[in-house]
Amino acid sequence: MTSCALSDPAHLPCFADVAAAAQRLAPVAVKTPILNDPWLDRKLGFRLLIKAEPLQRTGSFKFRGAYNKLVQMDEATRARGVVAFSSGNHAQGVAAAAQILGIKATIVMPADAPAIKLAKTRAYGATVVTYDRMTEDREAIARRIQEDQGASLVPPYDDRDIMAGQGTAAFELIGQATERGFAIDAFATCVSGGGLLAGSSLAFQELSPRTRLYSAEPVGFDDHARSFAAGSRITNEPGPRSFCDALLAPTPGLLTFAVNQTRLAGGIAVTDRAVEAAMRLAFDTFKLVVEPGGAVALAAAITGQIPGENRTVAVIASGGNVDPAVFCAAMQAV
Amino acid sequence: MTSCALSDPAHLPCFADVAAAAQRLAPVAVKTPILNDPWLDRKLGFRLLIKAEPLQRTGSFKFRGAYNKLVQMDEATRARGVVAFSSGNHAQGVAAAAQILGIKATIVMPADAPAIKLAKTRAYGATVVTYDRMTEDREAIARRIQEDQGASLVPPYDDRDIMAGQGTAAFELIGQATERGFAIDAFATCVSGGGLLAGSSLAFQELSPRTRLYSAEPVGFDDHARSFAAGSRITNEPGPRSFCDALLAPTPGLLTFAVNQTRLAGGIAVTDRAVEAAMRLAFDTFKLVVEPGGAVALAAAITGQIPGENRTVAVIASGGNVDPAVFCAAMQAV
Repeated sequence: MTSCALSDPAHLPCFADVAAAAQRLAPVAVKTPILNDPWLDRKLGFRLLIKAEPLQRTGSFKFRGAYNKLVQMDEATRARGVVAFSSGNHAQGVAAAAQILGIKATIVMPADAPAIKLAKTRAYGATVVTYDRMTEDREAIARRIQEDQGASLVPPYDDRDIMAGQGTAAFELIGQATERGFAIDAFATCVSGGGLLAGSSLAFQELSPRTRLYSAEPVGFDDHARSFAAGSRITNEPGPRSFCDALLAPTPGLLTFAVNQTRLAGGIAVTDRAVEAAMRLAFDTFKLVVEPGGAVALAAAITGQIPGENRTVAVIASGGNVDPAVFCAAMQAV
Repeated sequence: MTSCALSDPAHLPCFADVAAAAQRLAPVAVKTPILNDPWLDRKLGFRLLIKAEPLQRTGSFKFRGAYNKLVQMDEATRARGVVAFSSGNHAQGVAAAAQILGIKATIVMPADAPAIKLAKTRAYGATVVTYDRMTEDREAIARRIQEDQGASLVPPYDDRDIMAGQGTAAFELIGQATERGFAIDAFATCVSGGGLLAGSSLAFQELSPRTRLYSAEPVGFDDHARSFAAGSRITNEPGPRSFCDALLAPTPGLLTFAVNQTRLAGGIAVTDRAVEAAMRLAFDTFKLVVEPGGAVALAAAITGQIPGENRTVAVIASGGNVDPAVFCAAMQAV
């Protein structure tokens, strides 16, 4: 195992952080199942394993990183509370983790976030502060709350503990696949800031180094794919639209990119249309509700966009927090 | 453990049959997870465990009984093929089990069965024969196929091996709850012919005898509830309608009723409206697609219809094979 101390000049996480996070999360997180359908596999020509994070607490993987961060805070820090800004899944993850640990949470969310994400964040006991995405700066609002209350900011991805926590999804996935006798040839997951991918890439590097790793993003929001190709962080051009509300971060994170850059085989961009088809497939075949942003890696797999000769492909379905109207529009689009 | 030989003048299953079925199914069936949401529990006032059979192969528990039946057939019987009649989930269960075992399957299905159930049954390699529910007798059609081809009929519920196979869902559920330290006070599952409940009641009697067991049915199709109350099998009056397409059997099975009659605490009837709310809850909170018939026990639980002082209630969500239009109508109804 690579020593974290040696590899960590810039507070980058290493595999030991992911393994430690898995220990912390075991008593509170759901060990989500991997789903597989032999009949679909026959049609695809490869075995497809889906790590079903919609079945995670709060309906997305984001609970993992948030809890891993909050549980390591000391009493004095906990007492001052936490603040986070998020379009919805990180919001719920932080709110739920805070409630479990008895920490006051304030979450800054766009006023036009999916209703289910706003409602659930409040249901987990957080104070929700909404802002207008066109005219207000969420980071400034969060900073003001930090200053006023002394609360700690829980970053959505560019943080060692957050990345390590998210990586426990892949940590579990590799173990579950191995138990069933499957070696994973290729792995894909969605990226917005890149925290889930960063943690996952650490787990794969240690536990399954021969697996090729891919990012998956909506077309027009493929800043990771273009950044990997260019070798430096590139920001998305303004203009494009996507219904993948969870994946609209404009630029790869500084730390996540440092982790991911050297470990990835490539980046994949999928159309919203392909995402709708993936959501419908998850409904028909796996009986799983997947939100648009949660279905991009699945979309990459079923459209045959994952390169190479693959016997087994694993993807993370990262979340299921979607309003019924959006979900049902996707069901009917295909 | 009660000896099957002693308790079985009428080919009724016993607990040993359920345990043996669990052994047979372990290599091929999904050990479906139990879902729980602590925040929902707080609102309900009790702990709710959902055994998620939509995540089973073929999208419902019916694969369990069908495989347990077919895998015990000798070579000569297998060579002549199998035939079944079903509105959809038993059809898929038999078709999928037959395909795994290399047995030719013919399934007699109503022409107006949900499109997804017809398509999936064919996808599992079965020959589908459709009939008109108003003018044709499915049992007569199945009998003709039996006579013509020498095929064995796979009954939907009134069969020792089928009941024992379905009971493995509860067998697993009790084990999974125990592992997590939960004793189940009350258990409810949907009934149509009553096979799932019969197998489940054998598992509970042996492994968790203090659990109170309830049937759940749509209002107007509560033949089990009324039969338990009367002490003899009562047929539903013609007339009522329900969108729970999987639960429209008119009378409890002869054998299933013999098993269930002495073991049940009572029967619960739920409205279609409550079923829609349960489907919506499964979507919002558990990210699970549940078909109407699969959601009746969950509906009974969330409407507070399960009697007694309960700390932990377990229900089976029995299937998720629902057309998107029906599903989305339910999402919007609530």
